[in-house]
Order: sequence, then C-alpha cells, then structure tokens
Amino acid sequence: MPGNVLVGPGDDAALVRVGDADILLTVDQFVAGRHYDPASSTNAWIAQAALGRSLSDIAAMGGVPTHALCAATIGPDCPDPDALFDAMAAHAQSLSVSLVGGDIAMSDGPTVLTVTVVGVPHTARGAVLRSGACVGDSLYVTGALGGAASSSWTMETTPRLAEAKWLCDTLDKRLTSMIDISDGLGRDAGRVARASGAQLIVEAHRVPVAPGATLEQAVSGGQDYELLFTASGDVPERCDATGITITRIGSVHPGRGCLLRSSNGDARDISEAGWDHTRP
Amino acid sequence: MPGNVLVGPGDDAALVRVGDADILLTVDQFVAGRHYDPASSTNAWIAQAALGRSLSDIAAMGGVPTHALCAATIGPDCPDPDALFDAMAAHAQSLSVSLVGGDIAMSDGPTVLTVTVVGVPHTARGAVLRSGACVGDSLYVTGALGGAASSSWTMETTPRLAEAKWLCDTLDKRLTSMIDISDGLGRDAGRVARASGAQLIVEAHRVPVAPGATLEQAVSGGQDYELLFTASGDVPERCDATGITITRIGSVHPGRGCLLRSSNGDARDISEAGWDHTRP
Repeated sequence: MPGNVLVGPGDDAALVRVGDADILLTVDQFVAGRHYDPASSTNAWIAQAALGRSLSDIAAMGGVPTHALCAATIGPDCPDPDALFDAMAAHAQSLSVSLVGGDIAMSDGPTVLTVTVVGVPHTARGAVLRSGACVGDSLYVTGALGGAASSSWTMETTPRLAEAKWLCDTLDKRLTSMIDISDGLGRDAGRVARASGAQLIVEAHRVPVAPGATLEQAVSGGQDYELLFTASGDVPERCDATGITITRIGSVHPGRGCLLRSSNGDARDISEAGWDHTRP
Repeated sequence: MPGNVLVGPGDDAALVRVGDADILLTVDQFVAGRHYDPASSTNAWIAQAALGRSLSDIAAMGGVPTHALCAATIGPDCPDPDALFDAMAAHAQSLSVSLVGGDIAMSDGPTVLTVTVVGVPHTARGAVLRSGACVGDSLYVTGALGGAASSSWTMETTPRLAEAKWLCDTLDKRLTSMIDISDGLGRDAGRVARASGAQLIVEAHRVPVAPGATLEQAVSGGQDYELLFTASGDVPERCDATGITITRIGSVHPGRGCLLRSSNGDARDISEAGWDHTRP
C-alpha cells in the first residue's frame, strides 16, 4: 500500500507517509453567516480567515504549510467569486503557501469555503501531537484569549506558524503536546487532557485575557487560534522570533478533564466549554 | 521553500513535491440537489459518488490514491451525518484509501461534501498530463458514454483507477495525455486540445454510446468518469486488468478545438458542449 497513516483523525492534522515523505493534512470549512458575516467582510478578510483556520492546524502540529487547495460553494451572498479566489491566492502566496487547486460549485445556500492544507512536520522535533502531555509538565498559551469572542466577527486570524516553529526549535522534545485554540480554551484543553490521559489544571488568574474580553470569553470563546501547549523545564516568556507573549497558565496532573481553578481554590471542569461544531 | 509545484491548477490534479516525494492533490465538491437527489440516494451511493469524483481525477493523472479528507456542510436534507461519514470511510477503505480527516459544519443550505484526495503518480510513467497529445496520436475512450446523462442521478461512479494503472503499465510513454470525462466528452476533449496546442477530431460513428443514451448525451453529458486519452502506436481494444473496452474514437491534428465529424464529413466544434460548473 503506497500510503501509511502515522496519525489519523483526532489530532489537529493527520500525519501520513506518502512515498518517502511524511506529510501533514488538514481540512476546514468556513461558512458564511456562521463563521463570518458576508455583508460586512472584505474578500481579503474572508481569505485570511478561511486559510487561517487550516494553517492554524498545521501550526498546532509544529509543522510548516506547503500547499493548499480551496473548494468553494458559492451562494448568493458572494457576488464576485473570482475576486474571492484571487484574494485566497494572494494571501496564500504571502505565507509562502502554494494554492495548487480548487473547485467551484454554485448553491442557493450560504457560501462555504473548504480549505485543505498540506504541510511538513518540524524536521528535528517531528509532529507535535495532543497526546504527549506528561504529569509534571506546565501548560502554556501564546498571546491573549477571548478577543474573537468579545469582538464577534472582526478578528484577524494569524496562525501561529512562526511561534510553533520557534517552540519546536527552542524546546525540541521538551515540547510535549500542542493544540490550537479554535473552539475555546476549555474545550481544547479538554482534548489535550483526553488524548494524553491526564488532567490539566488552569489557574484562572493566570489566563491572559484579551483587552475588552472577560475571563469567561477567554475560557469559552472560540476562534482565537492561539497555541496551547505543554512543556517540561523552563520556557521563555516571549517568542524571540515574533515577540508574542507566552504565559504559563497551569500544569499537568494525574486524572482527567480540564479544571479551571480560581484563586480561592474552587475548581470547575471546563472541558465542555466553548464552541460546538455540531450545534444546530 | 519546503514544497514545489510541478503541475499547478488546470490539470485533473496538482502535482507537487513535498520533501522527497511527488504527490498528486485534488479536491471536488458534491452538492445535494445539484449533483445528487438527497431524497432518493442512499448513504452508500452518495459516498461512492462523492469519493468517486475526486478519485477519478487521480485516475486521470495515471496515479494511485493513498489518502482522503472529507469536509461536510450538513444541511436539513441529511438526517444522519454520522451514517454518511461511516459510509464514506467504508467506501474509501474498500478502495485501499485511508480517510484520515474531516470537518463538519451545520448549514441551512444543501449538504455539500468536499473530498480531497492525495495520491502518487505512476512509478514508471510519471504523471500523465492533459498537455501531452501530439499530432498523429490517436484518441481513445474507456467504456461507454452518455449513461449518466440518460439516467439522471442513478449512475454508479466507478473511477477508472485500475484501467489508468494498466494503461501506464502497458503504454508507458506512448500514453501521451489523459483526462477523465467529468463534464462531457466535448468539453473535456476541448481541454486536452487546448492544453496540448492541438486539434482533436472525434468521429461521431466511433463514439461508444451507452445503452439507452443518445449520441448527443454521449458527447455533452457529464459525470461519466470514463478516461479520455491519446496514445501513439497500437492500443489494445480491451483493458486486460478489468475487461473494460477501449475505443479509438478519433485522432490528433494541427489546429485547435475539438471537432465532431459525422460520416458525411460535416464537422462541428464540441469544445463547449457539456457541463458548466459555474452555470447558475
């Protein structure tokens, strides 16, 4: 069989072997009226956000994106599909990603952009999975959380590709697990806990809350696209490559789920907080 | 840059280099109410048809599919998304393709299945492009045409993967160009003509018309997913591997476009016949 599966569904991206190469594969959808407001969004914004979701999955694996494909179901909300595709190609190119294919279909429903991204794992560290968190590791997050939730549909999606590479370069195997916060800190931390067979405890007062956001939005809001990771040993407080802050927000323990612990010691499970893709 | 583009948009699939491997990439969408009737289609049928469209693109490059990703926008017409995904996974497995990822979003529009397939080119022949047809080559088609058009939404999609491999094995470099007939013989032959800088002449009386179909349906009907190819020298009349017939329907000439020539010598250009993806 020409292809093997090293990491299948259930992580941020799949890791497969094709010929002699290990490649990362991920797909995400971006739906008008659900993930963005078609009336108020520019093509450039839609392009960066649609690509950003899939690119963030590659970042979460510690990988480098190489190629992308975009399929679009164009609804009445999108008056100029060609301009949207041009914006997708331009944004991909600005990130050194080659947009190598696509498909277009017309629909009377909302516009849906489906972006597939191919990438390669970090050469030295290899792919960083959700499942590697070890008891005793600390838990970290890049940037600040809750910005997307507090400002609705107006955030830029800046996939943390440079930060992910820098973490792999700097921490190597001390970087034990990673995920991108697409569905909310609680829900995504819960996924790391489940995959790693451990409990994550988040200290509420340590969570970096974005300006204008509440702690609840930082914990439960989706679409922040920051990196959540676990590591052993010392971790710098800032990514040298980009200046993005890195905050230690908690630690890894025996048990299950993800607890948010307030300074008075109260704790609640936040594994089910956040964005549910399958809600009607 | 970790990835290179060997064949970009405009062929059946892209051919890119990732690390040391050459891989094929393609994406296609399958839209409820447009490509299939959700009320009368079983999940098994939808699964084989949705996967079949993308797999047929890999066949058209002479490749072997290895991995697939499926993104679904689930509309009210799909009552049981889990069963549909199970059917997708089962059908992929039956073809030795690993379904390694997906994404699901809910929508109030029609269900859209977006299938990305990764594959590898034929080891000896390499990828077979649309652009290699040479003056003096003959033009061939596998199977019979018009069946999908004459029977509406009831055809199986059997991607000609085994036939494509056999053609590469048997003809090697004598197999000069190939495409799958997804949008109609005329339109797809027109694409080969354009990419190759040549004129294709199809002899009307040689076109293998499916039972119950008309010549017009065979020429203009989409979704047949047979292979159209050009080759020099002798070509067997049947694929030894599968028994599918191979019919010589025409030849390659200097000029442009694709002409359908009737037995009285009249000819008309059929390059624009067939299925237009972007029609409203």
